[in-house]
Amino acid sequence: MSAVTLKMLAKHLSLSVATVSKALADSHEIRQSTKTLVIEGARELGYVGNPYASSLRKRASKTIAVVLPEVADSFFSEAINGIESVALQEGYHVLIYLTHEHLAREQAIMEEFKSGRVDGVLVSVSEETGSGEHIRRVLDSGTPVVFFDRVCDGPGTACVITDDFESSYRAVVHLAASGCRQPTFLATPTNLSISMNRLKGFEKALADLGLPRHKDEVLIFGKNEAENMDLLRAALSQPRPPDGMLVCVEKHVTYVYQLCAELRICIPDALKVIAFTNLKTAQFMSPPLTTVSQPAFEIGKTAAAALFRALKRASKTIDEEVIVIKSALVKRESTGSSPVSPG
Amino acid sequence: MSAVTLKMLAKHLSLSVATVSKALADSHEIRQSTKTLVIEGARELGYVGNPYASSLRKRASKTIAVVLPEVADSFFSEAINGIESVALQEGYHVLIYLTHEHLAREQAIMEEFKSGRVDGVLVSVSEETGSGEHIRRVLDSGTPVVFFDRVCDGPGTACVITDDFESSYRAVVHLAASGCRQPTFLATPTNLSISMNRLKGFEKALADLGLPRHKDEVLIFGKNEAENMDLLRAALSQPRPPDGMLVCVEKHVTYVYQLCAELRICIPDALKVIAFTNLKTAQFMSPPLTTVSQPAFEIGKTAAAALFRALKRASKTIDEEVIVIKSALVKRESTGSSPVSPG
Repeated sequence: MSAVTLKMLAKHLSLSVATVSKALADSHEIRQSTKTLVIEGARELGYVGNPYASSLRKRASKTIAVVLPEVADSFFSEAINGIESVALQEGYHVLIYLTHEHLAREQAIMEEFKSGRVDGVLVSVSEETGSGEHIRRVLDSGTPVVFFDRVCDGPGTACVITDDFESSYRAVVHLAASGCRQPTFLATPTNLSISMNRLKGFEKALADLGLPRHKDEVLIFGKNEAENMDLLRAALSQPRPPDGMLVCVEKHVTYVYQLCAELRICIPDALKVIAFTNLKTAQFMSPPLTTVSQPAFEIGKTAAAALFRALKRASKTIDEEVIVIKSALVKRESTGSSPVSPG
Repeated sequence: MSAVTLKMLAKHLSLSVATVSKALADSHEIRQSTKTLVIEGARELGYVGNPYASSLRKRASKTIAVVLPEVADSFFSEAINGIESVALQEGYHVLIYLTHEHLAREQAIMEEFKSGRVDGVLVSVSEETGSGEHIRRVLDSGTPVVFFDRVCDGPGTACVITDDFESSYRAVVHLAASGCRQPTFLATPTNLSISMNRLKGFEKALADLGLPRHKDEVLIFGKNEAENMDLLRAALSQPRPPDGMLVCVEKHVTYVYQLCAELRICIPDALKVIAFTNLKTAQFMSPPLTTVSQPAFEIGKTAAAALFRALKRASKTIDEEVIVIKSALVKRESTGSSPVSPG
């Protein structure tokens, strides 16, 4: 198969090359309905403009960067798809940079952007990131930055997040309604915005529901896998172990299922489990996992749209705004909910 | 937390700044044991060299690119981690580009590399890629390219792959030993090297085992989700449906579990299932999934090492070689194997 050309795309749509070209360039001469038609046709055929040739004309890199902790997580991989769905329409390349949760790597990456290597940046910060000084410097250099999911204080810019506090609150209410009296919050370090908000939601729900405080109410997982397993094993092996667990990060789900198998703790009878995850296998797990499913694709797409709004301005300035897209609690057997009938 | 500096790293290791600097630059003045110590210390503290400053000195981008179809797949996300483990040691940035299985995007990305934007490229080709002409042009421009996992004919360079033929063959032998007489191969388009080799291994095993040929012996999934579901539903709803299934690509696992739930087909009693996947949740699925587990991290690491061997030569030439790293068949209940006792 050879590359799809502008000419082939035009023929496929029965439009002139000039019309298709103008539609792709978002010209005011072209009607919105035609633009939509052309963009859909381009996606269907896999048409890709030549960003490099175009950047020579416009003196821009026609590239945006996505900076995030990792891709081995269903939230981030779906968010990337959302971002790319917008960038493709705009004829931009997307470069993905991973920080592996290290602030130092995030800083080194941001340093590089000050030289104008990319036109704009989408970032979800690392677990270690406190101050956003290194991100503010990128903004100051004239390159717009949008936060998605994990934000940090400081740089005034657009943020696209989900309702972490409310989602966590709803999850605890569901655990309590399912009979839990001692839920535990399984978290990453709490300087992360999402962890902090989820923890606050968890604690507010405990207080509102009048549930008693207990030891091991919050377990914080670090980077050492063996230490995490020991911490969780100790909590689950107590005389009065937790009877519910809200897992804040997808990668910790396997620890919980693993240890429950090892310690012969039955989910959901002895321990009810909810996790923040978009894992496609959640419904096929044993037992099927109750999830807080985040609108990952939408978050990525919305963040990219905010970035492109800024890129289309001569000033490249970005609106300071917080856009919240709601997550959904999907109840399954890991919290004792009856299975949804298939089909 | 502020960035880790060379000075902080040297202090942490009780070495001089000069020694640490030379060790990181792989100087012959420094012993290998010291280099290992320094590299481990750097990883532990999250030390990142400043590739940008360094690139100004050496007139190189200090950046390598990874071009692959998607990240929403455990194989690719682990392979990226393997690649980054090497790049980090070398003080290089890693840029990730996604093709979403489109040749046109792969071509546009490769076109960009001819301008020297990156020093080297690691690529796993798209489903649509036949000829490697666009990749050969990158090699011709003087930028070394290494294939990993999915290779294509044409460009003579290094390839790091797994034993797809043998893995598939072993999987069919296991299905037959578990009682299957009509296994089906669930595949993506077969112009992909991995699909082709897995299919050949499947067919050779059928022949060697003397299993009868049957309708729906091979089902090819395309990009349309609804069409894929219909194809599989039709095959499973026949009077004599397949009794075994070898799933070639991770993302198709959920289709199989989903349809078996819908059609009330019991895994493993009525259908035995094996999938090529590194999903961490495989052992917690209902029933636990038998997998062909690929050495994803090792493949990524080995491919990156081959690339850096070329980058360290004045000529930047790359050895033409094929490195094969073996996959493992992990037997679980989806093929009727008894569960491994936990702990």
